[in-house]
Amino acid sequence: MIKVGIIGSTGYAGAEIVRLIQQHKEAEVVWFGSRSYVDEKYADVFKNMFQIVDAKCMDDNMEELADAVDVIFTATPQGLCGSLVNEEILKKVKIIDLSADFRIKDVATYEKWYGIKHQSPQFIEEAVYGLCEVNRDKIKDARLIANPGCFPTCSFLSIYPMVKEGLVDPKSIIIDAKSGTSGAGRGAKVNNLFCEVNENCKAYGVATHRHTPEIEEQLSYAAGEEVMINFTPHLIPMQRGILATSYATLKKPMTYEEVKAVYDKYYKDEYFVRVLENSTPPETRWVEGSNFVDVSFKVDERTGRIIMMGAMDNLVKGAAGQAVQNMNIMFGLPENEGLQQVPMFP
Amino acid sequence: MIKVGIIGSTGYAGAEIVRLIQQHKEAEVVWFGSRSYVDEKYADVFKNMFQIVDAKCMDDNMEELADAVDVIFTATPQGLCGSLVNEEILKKVKIIDLSADFRIKDVATYEKWYGIKHQSPQFIEEAVYGLCEVNRDKIKDARLIANPGCFPTCSFLSIYPMVKEGLVDPKSIIIDAKSGTSGAGRGAKVNNLFCEVNENCKAYGVATHRHTPEIEEQLSYAAGEEVMINFTPHLIPMQRGILATSYATLKKPMTYEEVKAVYDKYYKDEYFVRVLENSTPPETRWVEGSNFVDVSFKVDERTGRIIMMGAMDNLVKGAAGQAVQNMNIMFGLPENEGLQQVPMFP
Amino acid sequence: MIKVGIIGSTGYAGAEIVRLIQQHKEAEVVWFGSRSYVDEKYADVFKNMFQIVDAKCMDDNMEELADAVDVIFTATPQGLCGSLVNEEILKKVKIIDLSADFRIKDVATYEKWYGIKHQSPQFIEEAVYGLCEVNRDKIKDARLIANPGCFPTCSFLSIYPMVKEGLVDPKSIIIDAKSGTSGAGRGAKVNNLFCEVNENCKAYGVATHRHTPEIEEQLSYAAGEEVMINFTPHLIPMQRGILATSYATLKKPMTYEEVKAVYDKYYKDEYFVRVLENSTPPETRWVEGSNFVDVSFKVDERTGRIIMMGAMDNLVKGAAGQAVQNMNIMFGLPENEGLQQVPMFP
Amino acid sequence: MIKVGIIGSTGYAGAEIVRLIQQHKEAEVVWFGSRSYVDEKYADVFKNMFQIVDAKCMDDNMEELADAVDVIFTATPQGLCGSLVNEEILKKVKIIDLSADFRIKDVATYEKWYGIKHQSPQFIEEAVYGLCEVNRDKIKDARLIANPGCFPTCSFLSIYPMVKEGLVDPKSIIIDAKSGTSGAGRGAKVNNLFCEVNENCKAYGVATHRHTPEIEEQLSYAAGEEVMINFTPHLIPMQRGILATSYATLKKPMTYEEVKAVYDKYYKDEYFVRVLENSTPPETRWVEGSNFVDVSFKVDERTGRIIMMGAMDNLVKGAAGQAVQNMNIMFGLPENEGLQQVPMFP
Repeated sequence: MIKVGIIGSTGYAGAEIVRLIQQHKEAEVVWFGSRSYVDEKYADVFKNMFQIVDAKCMDDNMEELADAVDVIFTATPQGLCGSLVNEEILKKVKIIDLSADFRIKDVATYEKWYGIKHQSPQFIEEAVYGLCEVNRDKIKDARLIANPGCFPTCSFLSIYPMVKEGLVDPKSIIIDAKSGTSGAGRGAKVNNLFCEVNENCKAYGVATHRHTPEIEEQLSYAAGEEVMINFTPHLIPMQRGILATSYATLKKPMTYEEVKAVYDKYYKDEYFVRVLENSTPPETRWVEGSNFVDVSFKVDERTGRIIMMGAMDNLVKGAAGQAVQNMNIMFGLPENEGLQQVPMFP
Repeated sequence: MIKVGIIGSTGYAGAEIVRLIQQHKEAEVVWFGSRSYVDEKYADVFKNMFQIVDAKCMDDNMEELADAVDVIFTATPQGLCGSLVNEEILKKVKIIDLSADFRIKDVATYEKWYGIKHQSPQFIEEAVYGLCEVNRDKIKDARLIANPGCFPTCSFLSIYPMVKEGLVDPKSIIIDAKSGTSGAGRGAKVNNLFCEVNENCKAYGVATHRHTPEIEEQLSYAAGEEVMINFTPHLIPMQRGILATSYATLKKPMTYEEVKAVYDKYYKDEYFVRVLENSTPPETRWVEGSNFVDVSFKVDERTGRIIMMGAMDNLVKGAAGQAVQNMNIMFGLPENEGLQQVPMFP
Repeated sequence: MIKVGIIGSTGYAGAEIVRLIQQHKEAEVVWFGSRSYVDEKYADVFKNMFQIVDAKCMDDNMEELADAVDVIFTATPQGLCGSLVNEEILKKVKIIDLSADFRIKDVATYEKWYGIKHQSPQFIEEAVYGLCEVNRDKIKDARLIANPGCFPTCSFLSIYPMVKEGLVDPKSIIIDAKSGTSGAGRGAKVNNLFCEVNENCKAYGVATHRHTPEIEEQLSYAAGEEVMINFTPHLIPMQRGILATSYATLKKPMTYEEVKAVYDKYYKDEYFVRVLENSTPPETRWVEGSNFVDVSFKVDERTGRIIMMGAMDNLVKGAAGQAVQNMNIMFGLPENEGLQQVPMFP
Repeated sequence: MIKVGIIGSTGYAGAEIVRLIQQHKEAEVVWFGSRSYVDEKYADVFKNMFQIVDAKCMDDNMEELADAVDVIFTATPQGLCGSLVNEEILKKVKIIDLSADFRIKDVATYEKWYGIKHQSPQFIEEAVYGLCEVNRDKIKDARLIANPGCFPTCSFLSIYPMVKEGLVDPKSIIIDAKSGTSGAGRGAKVNNLFCEVNENCKAYGVATHRHTPEIEEQLSYAAGEEVMINFTPHLIPMQRGILATSYATLKKPMTYEEVKAVYDKYYKDEYFVRVLENSTPPETRWVEGSNFVDVSFKVDERTGRIIMMGAMDNLVKGAAGQAVQNMNIMFGLPENEGLQQVPMFP
């Protein structure tokens, strides 16, 4: 039985790890970290866990935690994992960091977009970007996983095959994403109140959102050349779900069948990536609560562009689910253990 | 492996049975009945099932179905199950009817409140009212289960201990219930459009709702005398969830501890009924997607009344989940097999 | 032109006063009080007012305000108005207080339910409870108006005729109310985040909600005897709207027509109270954005009870709209000036 | 007093015309056309109009209507207005058509994208495209107005200044739009049920949506050369509101100030177009219920693109409000008469 510790277990992503591990046969959470709720019963904060989780919330002592568990998930704001990790800890325990601290290889880029100084740049090189479908082999032996961001996961997976095969102009990519509100976290902010979010749609972080360099870096690896994108996230009145709609110029005309073959080449054996048929647009309702990403595309002969779409649950494949998938790979378990929930609809 | 057939598998309750059985180790759906979608792939209707369910929808042939499966769930409008069932079928297969056809023992009462003629009154006596926590023993040997209505399940379970123990005035009970919209079904009706339901709250079926006699009958059995209630359901802008707030006059003053002991007496060993502590009001978000009913109460010394509250997912414990729970009891399986989903929040 | 000052203009109720006064021919807001946003442009906080309101937010100086305006609306937490008002101010300016400070005539009752010490009990007697349809004559000459609470307005108006005429048992009244989230205010609280409110329904303040004594006091005046009620508010995922469903035992059997005549007697000349026909249940969508209260009732011969229902926009008739209605009465204007918005649907 | 007739008054757009005209000093609705509800009281269908509108719904007799009113609004599916209009009628009455029948000058393009044969192509040339801010002068003398589509209005107005001034590459424009559900109409369709729309986001009509040629035609007029775009609408769980996020490549680098000056040149005197400051992203909540379009932009120096954003209420400026604005221009009234509602928030 894998012993799991979570730092930040009372945020939405942390709580989702708790939910998923509850349904995992080979793992159990033994440390419910939460600075805000130390000594309170976890089930008093998340009452869905009443009579399921009996433990109390504990503080963020990573040293102590390293002795108590096999793997630590840090579901915390940027900067925390980077400030806590050290070689002693990494010798004892595997770390899956859900923050952005180890996602970007270039420290200067990280510090510029995030506006904070990196506290442990010496581990960036070692850290593996935990996009399971792409980096599976490296993940197996990793000590430190940089769990991908929600928008990057959904955007990247829906574009990846076309970029990898060099079929689209790498300077033409525009990603327009829409996200439910759980992505904004559980902090008490006026902007996230029900009355402010409901009946509203807005873009945010236009041309400045921090997930931009993360997406560009990963797409550049895939392309083998520099990719520069526009990325615009939008907040919409749902709880869960991300839909990414991406536009790129085809280098040459392609038929539906040709493109479909490209997607199938990369994803036909991937359990969690479902390539829809006949250009059916993906919808967030069809993946809610599950670790699936549904991807699809439409070739527009008129404009010579391809529209690539992906739908995903931001808390599962976009955060906690992918983190558990990484854990499964690291511990040699079936990749979908604990992640076989059928999407819940309605 | 129990072979399951569903008549009405493309309604919300039917689809929820499909979702639950997917996660059930000892059962599999082999017949996806759906008059509206015959010969269409099930996963084209419910796209969450893409790459999970490969079958096509089939027609409602109960004779043929009886030969093909071990248990039939009828998730259909009132009257259908009553018109199809017969002795030949019941000899071959167990039936769990999610409609109201066999819930009410008095045919005249059924016909009056539902406004239709009962097609097979000869089976009413035999049918067992499938409220698992109360009728567990009878369910074990039943051939035909009348799966309880959503409002009756939530209302009854939150009131039951007080009525059973004779602690409240049986003529004083008022039940004010609030339901998400999935309870209204998947029919294409203007009243259930997003723009009509969102930002709206309304009562319906005031003093005439069909679940009234069902609740009264079950409470009367518990009380050992006739119970007459007011029951008012309300439609609110959510997908899933029922909250029932019930009022009754205490026969004599009682403390919180005394009442708590009564609830614990009935529910402390019930896996699916969680009695909250310290009069914490239950909330539908804490049970969503699960088979739990959270119940709680508040004694009001000023007025001498007790307010009893229950929260439940109408599609799970209020329909498909309780149906599967009944199946588990009928087939001698652990009662919570396939029903251990942790409530999903947010 | 009536000069209006608002203390608390950046809360939801305060902002609604701003919206309504914008559409009022005889009044204009000249003081946008907001402690939290002093010196910020009002339209930077409420961007709907961009290019409509040019003013900046100002501090809460009631002395200075009394010299600058003709009427002050206090849309602030309990206790503030009571701590600021004095005889000098009341000689200069009329005050319409949207808090509870002057609603309850018995100081001890106020202090018990609100848990705070009243700072100016000497003005309680003078203050007029601003339920326009009932106290119109007293309002005309008042200096200080206690603007009614949202739940009391909706509950009272839907019950009033029956209690006033002595047709229901005054000890039998149970009020079960459902409210949108704007009633919880614009404070940054986890409980009011989109992800916590959406897909959720819960009761709160069960048997202890502060609006209980306010409703009881007003119903007791109407009845001419003491009325004691159960009142349970619920939070549901909408922005605006209150639905109150009330139950009472009829003293003697009555027909629909008899009861309808009672309601018409009190409301047929009231512009803002619409008595629906044929027991049609009121719905919050049909009053949203307007100052209307839609009321209706259903006689249940089986149980001898009457179910009385009212729907209202909590920010309009339940707060800002009724406050403006009070202002109109106090200044001798047509009662519906600035309040003729047609309900907006969808 | 202008006499108004509405064909299709019980759809969402038609009902919004009713709401707006109620608040218009110089116009009144005298004919509530509705094939589905002939002879029913209008206020029985839209109960917000109880005690406000007393009329009954009438059939679609355009001949008779032409004699009874001064202006006819057709808020009906494509093809109806085209099939009813003739020279006799146009001599008697002005027509404002909210469908697409007269928006596209090239009949072949219309017939290709809409898949129906045009019934009165002889009036296409005469019809004026009713985008008030651009075609004001032609509208004054028009007999037949083609009221713009919702997406075209919002998309066009947020892009127009840049295209008109020739500052962006006309082949580079990508419009990604998000719409509330009222845009899908009031028809009883499973896809528009609350449970299907809520907690969901999806693209639709990808590369094939009918508003594409309408936007292209208008942008081409502005550019003085052919513009070809990608346009992707998305459905999100709100009632009202459209947000359009558009991307284009700048022909040369521009500063914020330079672009702002361009937008101000076109819009500083336009009452209904608000250019936000400092690249603030527009939000649908700030325009809900009003005829405003809020536009803004962000220059992205990295990619050399400009992101242009517009927010609008699809039922007001995107349909009924713009139709009334057109009526005001045609009848020589102040352009904002009946359209001065302040946006309602929350």
